[in-house]
Amino acid sequence: MKKDDTILIVGAGLCGSLLALRLGQRGFTVNVYEKRPDLRKVDISAGRSINLAFSDRGNKGMKLVDLEEKVKELCIPMNGRMIHDKEGNTFLSNYSGRDYEYINSISRGDLNALLLDEAEKHPKVNVHFNTSCKKVDFENTKAYFKNYNTKSEFTQTADVIIATDGAGSALRKSYYLERKFLFSFSQNYLTHGYKELSILPTENGGYKTYKNALHIWPRGDFMIIALPNLDGSFTVTLFLSYEEGEYNFNNLTNPEIVTEFFKKEFPDALEIMPNLVEDFFENPTAPLGTIKCSPWHYKGNTLLMGDSAHAIVPFYGQGMNASFEDVVEFDAVLDEEHESWEAVFKAYQKRRKKDTDAIADLAIDNFHEMKDHVANPIFQEKRKLEMALEDQFPKDYSSKYSLVTFNEHIGYREAMIKGRAQDEAILNMIADGDIEIKDNMSKEVLADALKRVQEVTNTILKHDRIAELKE
Amino acid sequence: MKKDDTILIVGAGLCGSLLALRLGQRGFTVNVYEKRPDLRKVDISAGRSINLAFSDRGNKGMKLVDLEEKVKELCIPMNGRMIHDKEGNTFLSNYSGRDYEYINSISRGDLNALLLDEAEKHPKVNVHFNTSCKKVDFENTKAYFKNYNTKSEFTQTADVIIATDGAGSALRKSYYLERKFLFSFSQNYLTHGYKELSILPTENGGYKTYKNALHIWPRGDFMIIALPNLDGSFTVTLFLSYEEGEYNFNNLTNPEIVTEFFKKEFPDALEIMPNLVEDFFENPTAPLGTIKCSPWHYKGNTLLMGDSAHAIVPFYGQGMNASFEDVVEFDAVLDEEHESWEAVFKAYQKRRKKDTDAIADLAIDNFHEMKDHVANPIFQEKRKLEMALEDQFPKDYSSKYSLVTFNEHIGYREAMIKGRAQDEAILNMIADGDIEIKDNMSKEVLADALKRVQEVTNTILKHDRIAELKE
Repeated sequence: MKKDDTILIVGAGLCGSLLALRLGQRGFTVNVYEKRPDLRKVDISAGRSINLAFSDRGNKGMKLVDLEEKVKELCIPMNGRMIHDKEGNTFLSNYSGRDYEYINSISRGDLNALLLDEAEKHPKVNVHFNTSCKKVDFENTKAYFKNYNTKSEFTQTADVIIATDGAGSALRKSYYLERKFLFSFSQNYLTHGYKELSILPTENGGYKTYKNALHIWPRGDFMIIALPNLDGSFTVTLFLSYEEGEYNFNNLTNPEIVTEFFKKEFPDALEIMPNLVEDFFENPTAPLGTIKCSPWHYKGNTLLMGDSAHAIVPFYGQGMNASFEDVVEFDAVLDEEHESWEAVFKAYQKRRKKDTDAIADLAIDNFHEMKDHVANPIFQEKRKLEMALEDQFPKDYSSKYSLVTFNEHIGYREAMIKGRAQDEAILNMIADGDIEIKDNMSKEVLADALKRVQEVTNTILKHDRIAELKE
Repeated sequence: MKKDDTILIVGAGLCGSLLALRLGQRGFTVNVYEKRPDLRKVDISAGRSINLAFSDRGNKGMKLVDLEEKVKELCIPMNGRMIHDKEGNTFLSNYSGRDYEYINSISRGDLNALLLDEAEKHPKVNVHFNTSCKKVDFENTKAYFKNYNTKSEFTQTADVIIATDGAGSALRKSYYLERKFLFSFSQNYLTHGYKELSILPTENGGYKTYKNALHIWPRGDFMIIALPNLDGSFTVTLFLSYEEGEYNFNNLTNPEIVTEFFKKEFPDALEIMPNLVEDFFENPTAPLGTIKCSPWHYKGNTLLMGDSAHAIVPFYGQGMNASFEDVVEFDAVLDEEHESWEAVFKAYQKRRKKDTDAIADLAIDNFHEMKDHVANPIFQEKRKLEMALEDQFPKDYSSKYSLVTFNEHIGYREAMIKGRAQDEAILNMIADGDIEIKDNMSKEVLADALKRVQEVTNTILKHDRIAELKE
């Protein structure tokens, strides 16, 4: 690899834009091809993931390219989950017992536009829109494109091709179909799909419900959630089975039944969603899939990054954050001064894949946590203890959620292993009556609880290692 | 569905032949298309899985079609694993403490031929060879074929198409490529491949090493195994990484290095394998993959069964057994008298998939157990205790291996959950010094050990359920 190599990036979404910006900063010649029109000129929101959760791992990417302050202006802090029950009662469950730990709602379009603007400031970075990648000849580092405006087809070679073209990646499809090497691959869909709806602002642009939370209406087998936007609106997402249960996407086919469903299950939401029926029938229903694969690269020619390598379900709010962290990790590998692109790609996958596998699994765990467990008394007791521990012993305890979301110096896999053991420890201590959780526990009582939680957690971790014959 | 429906089966391997036979017995009209020549007329062994492990779950399939006695004649009992260390020392580790529990080595070709012979005795069952399925139009229940002899291409419709065409299934490929429904799919390769070798019989047709065992030479990162054949030979399989370690498939490129590798790692095997180099360079190196997918069926038109739905790695000796059990389970669903093929297929997948997912995961566990753990002292202590418990309390204890292999009345998933908890319990009791394992433990000592193993196992199972918020 040479300092002036030409890099072709397929896809100018969040990951591709950040990657182009960072590689531009490092002095590479970068050509980016994006199938959609320039989102700074055309409104291309299609009722799908208008806003996203942005948190500490994503912010590492913004620090890397010196955009932390500019991105902060786009953020709406969400301090916790606002849980809505069927009677319309609400309670706020903070994400952390530490006040300074929270996640943010951010507009996908605004953030993507900012990254594109910054990338294009580098004269050696060029972004081409309306140009779709059809396939990649990875033996010859050559991509096949079609321009939607001119209808012309052309090929482009480069020293390296990096595909950040999302869950439907053309490069990944070429890896699979060409069968030139052993390519492990999985696509797994949940039984549930999703549909985006909205809560519009008040007449004077205010928020119709509490602004600084991620709202959840958990109903066991399905749920709606809502994230705030800067204009006073909320983007609402319904997660629902395609075919199971009394109400499902297959049978919500007319305005009456949709309204009946919301009246019965989400009455307080329905009150502030007069536009429900219109949204419901205008916006698409989309599937929820997880994609894993390996290897991510072919020799030193091509590499998958972001969703193209590891698409995940949205329930941990980590999709974008994981993709930004990909760029941070890739950048760190570039600093190691490997002798070839192949060595860079190998080192990157070795360092990174265990963590993207972990966040994929954690995201599915959180699907069940959000739609179901948050309404479970034993789960709520665990959260109460964890909040108190994080508040009283901010340096000594982090819940699984905190480990994943706010401990960006450790990888997702380490967070998963420790976080799951802690959850198992606390849930079992509660179930076995080994710990009693009250409001306003004294610091002495909490100190004792912390010690015992740590002991039980360590025993679980040790026993797991022994069971795997690793000790 | 009607009693005289026409069923098209793609693939006349072990699963397809048994299915054709059973459906013939039930009175259906059955047309089977197989891409290879008739193995009863042409020798088509290609250095790949010449013999297989046949055990109790597979035998359920033979009982179903009344072939148990005929199959027994093809079987060579293997009572345990004969472990060979680097110095040539051997020790036998039985599969069970119950004398009547053992597995068998059986010839794939002989068994397949028997099933074909029996299937063809039914006048409404017809088997067509040299006819490859190219794709399936599952909307219209139509399969596309090419005959290798006449080079002609044709299509065939039926009331139902069942694909038993193995890991490379044409129907599964059509499900994936057509994208007409959400199809979850995974193909995952191990870092290791395999190559078949052989130990030839003695001059007078005897066995060069102990006949009634599955021989293993475990070396941590790689291994060879050997299974006996009726003619006095053993089929040997080398499992080795493609690219990692001092010796791997990528660098074993000449006779000298192959011989050096065997001399160093498997000296006692090399002594009885004068034909090693010839075998090594004549036989292919093949990958080891796991395939899972869902749904297995499209409406009431088409269904995947056997390896086409769930190909697994060979380390539990359950691939064929699982496919035969598929036929038994499918037959049981047919007895339930559902109103449509769609209802049959749905009920079959609901009942069966959890178990084939489990055996896929168990088979990967056993890869690590066979190449590595069997040589681990703490693992060997566990096995010693389990043998003694099975011997002294045959009705009260079954190891994970026994649950999977010899407890054919419970499903793979139940066997996995209970077996893993038992393993965790015993390994941790040994590691924590909570149990001492000696030779010739008295019945009283063993009774106490059994009670404590059961208690710890039940606690683990309970804690797991609590951690999943299922209690």
